[in-house]
Amino acid sequence: MGDTANHLDVASLDAHWRAANYLSCGQIYLMGNPLLSEPLSPEHIKPRLLGHWGTTPGLNLVYTHLNRLIRERDQDTLCVWGPGHGGPAILAGSWLEGSYTEFYPDVTRDRSGMERFFRQFSFPGGVPSHAAPDVPGSIHEGGELGYSLAHAYGAALDNPQLLVACVIGDGEAETGPLAASWHGNKFLDPVHDGAVLPILHLNGYKIANPTVLARLPEAELDQLLRGYGHEPLYVTGDVDDPHAVHHKLATALDSAADRVREIQHRARVGRVAGRPRWPMIVLRTPKGWTGPAEADGKPVEDTWRSHQVPLAEVRENHDHLLRLEAWLRSYRPGELFDEAGRPRPQVLRYVPDGARRLGATPHANGGIRLRELPVPSLERYGVQVDKPGASSHAPTRVLGSLLADLMAATADRRDFRLVGPDETASNRLDAVYETTGKAWQEQTLATDEHLNRDGRVMEVLSEHLCQGWLEGYLLTGRHGLFSSYEAFAHIVASMASQHIKWLKSADELRWRRPVASLNYLLTSHVWRQDHNGFSHQDPGFVDHVFNKSPDYVRVYLPPDANTLLAVTEHVLGTRNLVNVVVAGKQPCFDWMPLEDARRHCARGVGVWPWAGTDDGHRVPDAVLACAGDVPTQETLAAAALLRRHLPDLAVRVVNVVDLARLLPADQHPHGMTDTDYDALFTRDRPVIFAYHGYPWLVHRLTYRRTGHDNLHVRGYQEEGSTTTPFDMVVRNNLDRYRLAMDVVDRVPGLAVHAADLRQHLADVRGRHHEWIRQHGTDLPEVAEWAWPG
Amino acid sequence: MGDTANHLDVASLDAHWRAANYLSCGQIYLMGNPLLSEPLSPEHIKPRLLGHWGTTPGLNLVYTHLNRLIRERDQDTLCVWGPGHGGPAILAGSWLEGSYTEFYPDVTRDRSGMERFFRQFSFPGGVPSHAAPDVPGSIHEGGELGYSLAHAYGAALDNPQLLVACVIGDGEAETGPLAASWHGNKFLDPVHDGAVLPILHLNGYKIANPTVLARLPEAELDQLLRGYGHEPLYVTGDVDDPHAVHHKLATALDSAADRVREIQHRARVGRVAGRPRWPMIVLRTPKGWTGPAEADGKPVEDTWRSHQVPLAEVRENHDHLLRLEAWLRSYRPGELFDEAGRPRPQVLRYVPDGARRLGATPHANGGIRLRELPVPSLERYGVQVDKPGASSHAPTRVLGSLLADLMAATADRRDFRLVGPDETASNRLDAVYETTGKAWQEQTLATDEHLNRDGRVMEVLSEHLCQGWLEGYLLTGRHGLFSSYEAFAHIVASMASQHIKWLKSADELRWRRPVASLNYLLTSHVWRQDHNGFSHQDPGFVDHVFNKSPDYVRVYLPPDANTLLAVTEHVLGTRNLVNVVVAGKQPCFDWMPLEDARRHCARGVGVWPWAGTDDGHRVPDAVLACAGDVPTQETLAAAALLRRHLPDLAVRVVNVVDLARLLPADQHPHGMTDTDYDALFTRDRPVIFAYHGYPWLVHRLTYRRTGHDNLHVRGYQEEGSTTTPFDMVVRNNLDRYRLAMDVVDRVPGLAVHAADLRQHLADVRGRHHEWIRQHGTDLPEVAEWAWPG
Repeated sequence: MGDTANHLDVASLDAHWRAANYLSCGQIYLMGNPLLSEPLSPEHIKPRLLGHWGTTPGLNLVYTHLNRLIRERDQDTLCVWGPGHGGPAILAGSWLEGSYTEFYPDVTRDRSGMERFFRQFSFPGGVPSHAAPDVPGSIHEGGELGYSLAHAYGAALDNPQLLVACVIGDGEAETGPLAASWHGNKFLDPVHDGAVLPILHLNGYKIANPTVLARLPEAELDQLLRGYGHEPLYVTGDVDDPHAVHHKLATALDSAADRVREIQHRARVGRVAGRPRWPMIVLRTPKGWTGPAEADGKPVEDTWRSHQVPLAEVRENHDHLLRLEAWLRSYRPGELFDEAGRPRPQVLRYVPDGARRLGATPHANGGIRLRELPVPSLERYGVQVDKPGASSHAPTRVLGSLLADLMAATADRRDFRLVGPDETASNRLDAVYETTGKAWQEQTLATDEHLNRDGRVMEVLSEHLCQGWLEGYLLTGRHGLFSSYEAFAHIVASMASQHIKWLKSADELRWRRPVASLNYLLTSHVWRQDHNGFSHQDPGFVDHVFNKSPDYVRVYLPPDANTLLAVTEHVLGTRNLVNVVVAGKQPCFDWMPLEDARRHCARGVGVWPWAGTDDGHRVPDAVLACAGDVPTQETLAAAALLRRHLPDLAVRVVNVVDLARLLPADQHPHGMTDTDYDALFTRDRPVIFAYHGYPWLVHRLTYRRTGHDNLHVRGYQEEGSTTTPFDMVVRNNLDRYRLAMDVVDRVPGLAVHAADLRQHLADVRGRHHEWIRQHGTDLPEVAEWAWPG
Repeated sequence: MGDTANHLDVASLDAHWRAANYLSCGQIYLMGNPLLSEPLSPEHIKPRLLGHWGTTPGLNLVYTHLNRLIRERDQDTLCVWGPGHGGPAILAGSWLEGSYTEFYPDVTRDRSGMERFFRQFSFPGGVPSHAAPDVPGSIHEGGELGYSLAHAYGAALDNPQLLVACVIGDGEAETGPLAASWHGNKFLDPVHDGAVLPILHLNGYKIANPTVLARLPEAELDQLLRGYGHEPLYVTGDVDDPHAVHHKLATALDSAADRVREIQHRARVGRVAGRPRWPMIVLRTPKGWTGPAEADGKPVEDTWRSHQVPLAEVRENHDHLLRLEAWLRSYRPGELFDEAGRPRPQVLRYVPDGARRLGATPHANGGIRLRELPVPSLERYGVQVDKPGASSHAPTRVLGSLLADLMAATADRRDFRLVGPDETASNRLDAVYETTGKAWQEQTLATDEHLNRDGRVMEVLSEHLCQGWLEGYLLTGRHGLFSSYEAFAHIVASMASQHIKWLKSADELRWRRPVASLNYLLTSHVWRQDHNGFSHQDPGFVDHVFNKSPDYVRVYLPPDANTLLAVTEHVLGTRNLVNVVVAGKQPCFDWMPLEDARRHCARGVGVWPWAGTDDGHRVPDAVLACAGDVPTQETLAAAALLRRHLPDLAVRVVNVVDLARLLPADQHPHGMTDTDYDALFTRDRPVIFAYHGYPWLVHRLTYRRTGHDNLHVRGYQEEGSTTTPFDMVVRNNLDRYRLAMDVVDRVPGLAVHAADLRQHLADVRGRHHEWIRQHGTDLPEVAEWAWPG
């Protein structure tokens, strides 16, 4: 500690901090006169003042001090800025260190560049006010609060040399996902993973209220953070003596870095037992520090009033204008920038070089580091299918073997992770434990299985953590798969939305390289929630995803094991997408051999001629379409019923794997032309579509098609309980008898011709109700049904 | 403590616990021979074994001991069972105390009732496996984990005599929402609110893994819980001596109850300073305790293998059958039930009477306690509108005054709360602070405003807590409103889904009385995220809600201040619904006087004749439809453009407030008949629909209408940044010029006739781009536009 103090060039640190504060304030307010070379006047002020000052000086302080830490230790470092809405700070740090100009050459590190830099912030056609993808060094936008620490852990995994600093705002700390994220240290391996250094920024206030953590008694806060498994180091900034903070923060950062190094060293030479107690920093500084002490007779600095724009009427109110000028000049810009607007050497004294700069780290542009994933050849896992429906397999179990070998193939590279909320085994993917374990740094007991320190399966009962970890992992250039109960994917709907927004914005920048897609495997789905029932039934995550930018979303519903393999192989090779794969974990019929499955999945939709009774050329009397494993089974059973009872009826069976195929070609990259659509579904024949999820989604995808008026969709309609699989489809009118009746009802003339059949179907259906109430099982003819091919 | 020990009838406690365990096991396995009056044989066993044993004995133990606490202290008590999937336990407790039979008279408290009780569990047509609404005393289903403690706090608010025990599973404790919920004690007023007693159940394992909290070193766990502000009391059950736990748990519960009483007493006589340190219990018991020690050569009790059905093949495997019989007989049923199957007196020794029973508390059937809300007459708040568009008001600010008076009107009753994630002021509802404050038990500073111990505004930066608190508050018979940024409502999409499922299931039971609706006010919406940008733009929460059972969901988009008042008055009077109200916080034009607004909102959709140019009788040339404040403004501006430039064109303006009106009458209670729909929107004229959210939702609602092929919807298409309000609508093609061009393009013959106008509109639109990049503000003709009426 004495070492830090003795060598510290506080003046340089302070110069950098003041420069960053100056640049931040400038971004919020100025569109001219960037160096204050003349008195400030209203025309220098932006007409709309948008941004967040309150958190910014604290973020600037951290940037300044991380620079020193990185430079003095040549420490590979990424920083996740939780209060991403303090965008001006991260932008200022990047501009000062020069990385900004490297990515945006027209924003030069001089007077004219500074003016452009100021003007573009929160300005139409300029840059957003958050730490969006535009911001060098950022992997975390910070608009929707709660995910910074999970992102930080995700970034640290399998990056043993990396230090991930993570600034956590005390507002964000009140969110659920953040509160859960503290336990990430129970899953971080000090040998194979990097370190996470949480910096809890007790800024004191959120938008309009004090924060819970900032007002805890100090002893209670200390207990809480130790309870989270950390060794907290406290740094408090004095509102009246900002300068004094530098020694404290530099010392704390050095102590933390020393402690991290020591933990890692001990673990890596094998001298460790149990989980280490990682350091963290509690940085207590006034909100809006160094900004205006008051305005309009009310205190501003160190209150919530500095959250956004502390002086709101600078253009109209001369007193505000004077206060702004005084505020800007309080940083003494003349000492910080030369006449040409270039930062003076003292400001840059501690700025690191090249890729060590926070804005230039390749970890924050993960596509640079991304390697192709060595997905094993599917032939080893594909199930043999001599004829459709003659055997059955649990699709996810078959996939498990592929994932096990993928884990083996990446054992040295360590760039693939499987995450899930305590459901890997429940979702039948437990074959992966043959080649890797579950990450776990806590105590283990003799009865435990597959837990180990360096496992690459991440299991925690929090969808938020699974998603956050995986996002952090992917954005830093690695690969992964998130397996979840289908219904509970909704828990992370908003996170998925934010990730898709990130991908879209990032993709629009030239310098951001594509990252691996975020792949969801949604299983334990709506139709087979045998142990749970109604609360576990919600297939609507795909509806949510389809509202997002079509260039970044894909949805697949493989109907059996081989198609699940083919789809998984595909999605693991894609970039910059969110892929949602919905598949069953219960045994289901094998419909097609692997090669057929591959072709079918590549087309995304196709006629299954062996299942229908049309001759493949003439226009059929009706189309039975299906998407999803259970709907496919019910559709084929309906087709079999119709074939038996109405052999002359020409029924075409169409299976849809890639749901976006239903969209018009101009609406989605995978969309189908009307010609192709009409060739499959016809322009005028009744189409009975058995869909896995909410039926309206299919209408929303197809409403522009000529044949849409003839489309009749069956799907989940929020009817369910703890009951049998067949009762579930009956309750929602998705069962084989209902589908066959739908055909009878909709093919012109058939209702009369096949009245007996219709009655028969209704009778069997009716018998089901009585039977299950008596026996608790499905009708024998349903339970034992097999495709009669 | 000695007092507890001396008087304790441990034998009776143990008898109740054994009886509950017996009944739980019976529910999972048996469909006959309930009293084991003959040897167990396969036909007594259910064909499908579904349920969760692992957590159940622990829940039974808590039920047993809460009974004693309640009975001995006549303590008004509600229990929230976090591990709701341990349904057999809560059902067993209810059957034993007799409340079950009161709600379900055919399930008698005797042999035949017991058989029915066993058989119905997880059986088709029977009862679900979770603590669903069917379960007496439950307000928490527990399927989607994470919300128990928030529900408990919500139930305790404004119930000063109530003790809310809350069993938190250690699996659930890993979730984000639960991790955040611990801080609920910072918002609980010991004077006006009841007490929450968290019982952290360290069951050791989740589905397939140990839990994080169960494996923390004890000292670290203690720090964590003290850091959460609690005084933990530890109770550990011994796998080899279950009996020994009774003394420990009874003593801990007595200590906790004493401590609660003392805290409340001191606070209520005014002898308190600062937040109290509330007690809590840490109950560490083996998972699947008292169940089979092992099966198939592997340990079961005290491992994750007891999570669901510990012996899985009882029908087929004779060894399993024998083990099951031994397990059941280990509870010595003959001591617990008489020959007629009635619980013996010893079992019921500590069961409370009447409404004090956990299954009979009126708090869990909140509709019983619900009173009509005294909503003040709207006339006091309505803004004067002499002609449309001549003035403007911020709708939510106007609503704030109503809410302030509603707070005043309920000051004594204390049955209305406003919750929000730190956004009440940002959402312009801050008038409420004139009549109540923000609940806050932490330290306050001189600069703080509106914080007080008994405030009824709840502000915490966690949508999960807001939602969970409000759900708990509503389900126990009170009223509330949740105001949130529109985009971040998605954070609680899954919770909303679960609440709607609860409402549907509860409504299907005769004995559950209707509760007040859950009302969302979504503001700071997609079109006006001036300070934030892309991450804050997501209008899709309503899409999510529309996938749910139509009987329980409503969506309103009032276009101005008076319509917001009218809608709010309506939703506050509804029951058993989720109402989503989307409204602006920025000043917008006042379109209609209060009385007109009321009529318009009651109809939900209507022609605005003053805005259009059709004469109200003949079929118009085109319809301009709109829903939402910004789309309404752009639509009226488009109508004004068309009126000026094409005075002969008959354009009808239709405004939609109640979005479900667009649905067919047989699809939603608010749906419109085709006749009514056609009369408004025509059967064959082009309809340009400017919609607030994702345009596909309007198609999904209207695809069955005759005129659907002529419907052209504009809405949000995931284009946005930090920019001007008008640039937002331009980016998404929802602007007035685009809408007017759409009319020109779609009315037959008009494209040629009005080619000059079209070019003019395109020119102005084009000018906008250049202008905002130069000036940072919208075109003067847009910024200063006013309805020309």
